[in-house]
Amino acid sequence: MSELFNDPHQLASACSDAMHANDDASKLLGIEIIESRPGHARLQLTVSRKMTNGHDICHGGFVFTLADSAFAHACNNTNRVTVASGCSIEFLAPGAIGDVLTATASERSRSGRTGVYDVDVTNQNNELIAVFRGKSYQIKGQLIDQPGEPT
Amino acid sequence: MSELFNDPHQLASACSDAMHANDDASKLLGIEIIESRPGHARLQLTVSRKMTNGHDICHGGFVFTLADSAFAHACNNTNRVTVASGCSIEFLAPGAIGDVLTATASERSRSGRTGVYDVDVTNQNNELIAVFRGKSYQIKGQLIDQPGEPT
Amino acid sequence: MSELFNDPHQLASACSDAMHANDDASKLLGIEIIESRPGHARLQLTVSRKMTNGHDICHGGFVFTLADSAFAHACNNTNRVTVASGCSIEFLAPGAIGDVLTATASERSRSGRTGVYDVDVTNQNNELIAVFRGKSYQIKGQLIDQPGEPT
Amino acid sequence: MSELFNDPHQLASACSDAMHANDDASKLLGIEIIESRPGHARLQLTVSRKMTNGHDICHGGFVFTLADSAFAHACNNTNRVTVASGCSIEFLAPGAIGDVLTATASERSRSGRTGVYDVDVTNQNNELIAVFRGKSYQIKGQLIDQPGEPT
Repeated sequence: MSELFNDPHQLASACSDAMHANDDASKLLGIEIIESRPGHARLQLTVSRKMTNGHDICHGGFVFTLADSAFAHACNNTNRVTVASGCSIEFLAPGAIGDVLTATASERSRSGRTGVYDVDVTNQNNELIAVFRGKSYQIKGQLIDQPGEPT
Repeated sequence: MSELFNDPHQLASACSDAMHANDDASKLLGIEIIESRPGHARLQLTVSRKMTNGHDICHGGFVFTLADSAFAHACNNTNRVTVASGCSIEFLAPGAIGDVLTATASERSRSGRTGVYDVDVTNQNNELIAVFRGKSYQIKGQLIDQPGEPT
Repeated sequence: MSELFNDPHQLASACSDAMHANDDASKLLGIEIIESRPGHARLQLTVSRKMTNGHDICHGGFVFTLADSAFAHACNNTNRVTVASGCSIEFLAPGAIGDVLTATASERSRSGRTGVYDVDVTNQNNELIAVFRGKSYQIKGQLIDQPGEPT
Repeated sequence: MSELFNDPHQLASACSDAMHANDDASKLLGIEIIESRPGHARLQLTVSRKMTNGHDICHGGFVFTLADSAFAHACNNTNRVTVASGCSIEFLAPGAIGDVLTATASERSRSGRTGVYDVDVTNQNNELIAVFRGKSYQIKGQLIDQPGEPT
């Protein structure tokens, strides 16, 4: 029943759409997918009042969540179900209410079941807000039913 | 006008209450403070549908947010305004809908303006879900107006 | 031909001895094994002139090497060949020439092929010099030939 | 007595030379400086027998040491004395005896007293061996006596 994808870019988009449709967490924060191509993804979030912490800036956990979601799209959009084994984030500047944060994820390495992805988070002035590094682990399965082994 | 605290444990509780009152992010996720004493804090969250990701488990970003909040309480509850400079998290087991996650933060080191805090996240069966390490940086100011220098 | 070990503590010691015998890197720095029991290890190094960096303190790389070696013993001494996939270290205080540094590694989690180990590095005054966290990945093979599957 | 540098590139080279002259640790491993310009540095090491661990590959601690040294040059070569507060490394492929490893460090962020630097370690076939991220903390002082405040 499911569509057959020959183009890796179309497959990447379809994987991201399938993930996003099922991702209540990203919806809760209003995270949007700007771009998804094999091993890369760009996601966006606008900081609102409900995302601020006790210091009145965007809770670091939500900056992380945005970056982690971009990482998830970048490592799943080749249609191999992949989870995060660990992540690190460095906070460089705060996010204020109304700021539009963009997380850009890129694959640095993928070999066997494991991978490393870097994510930069910038604001609407192109200032670097945070740098994130995610370690991925591929488990069994496909996001979208396709013939043959996951590649 | 503000109360004078001689007991560091009472001050820690008051700092955590002040942070929590202003923390919309933690309220969004229903994070509760279980314990706050100088350099330590224990916070709890119940995983709900809205926190799940495209793989139908608790979004790693929210496990991180819980841990990061526990870290924030542990490093701010001596009444010195302190922010996260960076954090790392290792995901050991998934969180399912209905799971009660507890984050326990402990100060490992604090010297000058910087500190290191470890946070363990466990579920209701006392299984380790994630380990988190936060690096803190003290900025100017007090959470609660007290006489003298921040100590 | 190789000895059969029924006691996991004896096996841990034998694994550490086998690793150490073949570890030129640790010998170069004069690293000594103080203790090795299943999932735990304690190693020691005395800081000498040749280990100092341009700031005249022990090169962070050698503090890391000590911690990484303790991690390696802790994750290999159950006789399953295991390598580091990634590590992080926070430097808390410098090491001076003549300081005796002790790295104590403990297993925090091990499940499937992956594990997490924490290592504390202290000096002769029991001051915390660094905290280290290692992520391990089990590959094929045994350190010491034993009957049955690696356990 | 000391030379006055008007060109930041000449100052970067002079800072690296001053650091290297005093760096016994890098000499122990035969680490060489290939390039040093403001906020960037490239260092090289050839893996020898003495650098191998119990698995007969280059000890991760020495891959780390190379990356950490490149990081140190990149964050000190603007003549502000700067130390590492923490580092993380992901190991992607092993280094064998005879491999020539190159660590390339780049400043990602520097603001106030803190900075973030990324280091890639590649081998002679341009394969990525490890990715490293260092967090720096500027302390008092200059590497080379120059008039005015450290800039």
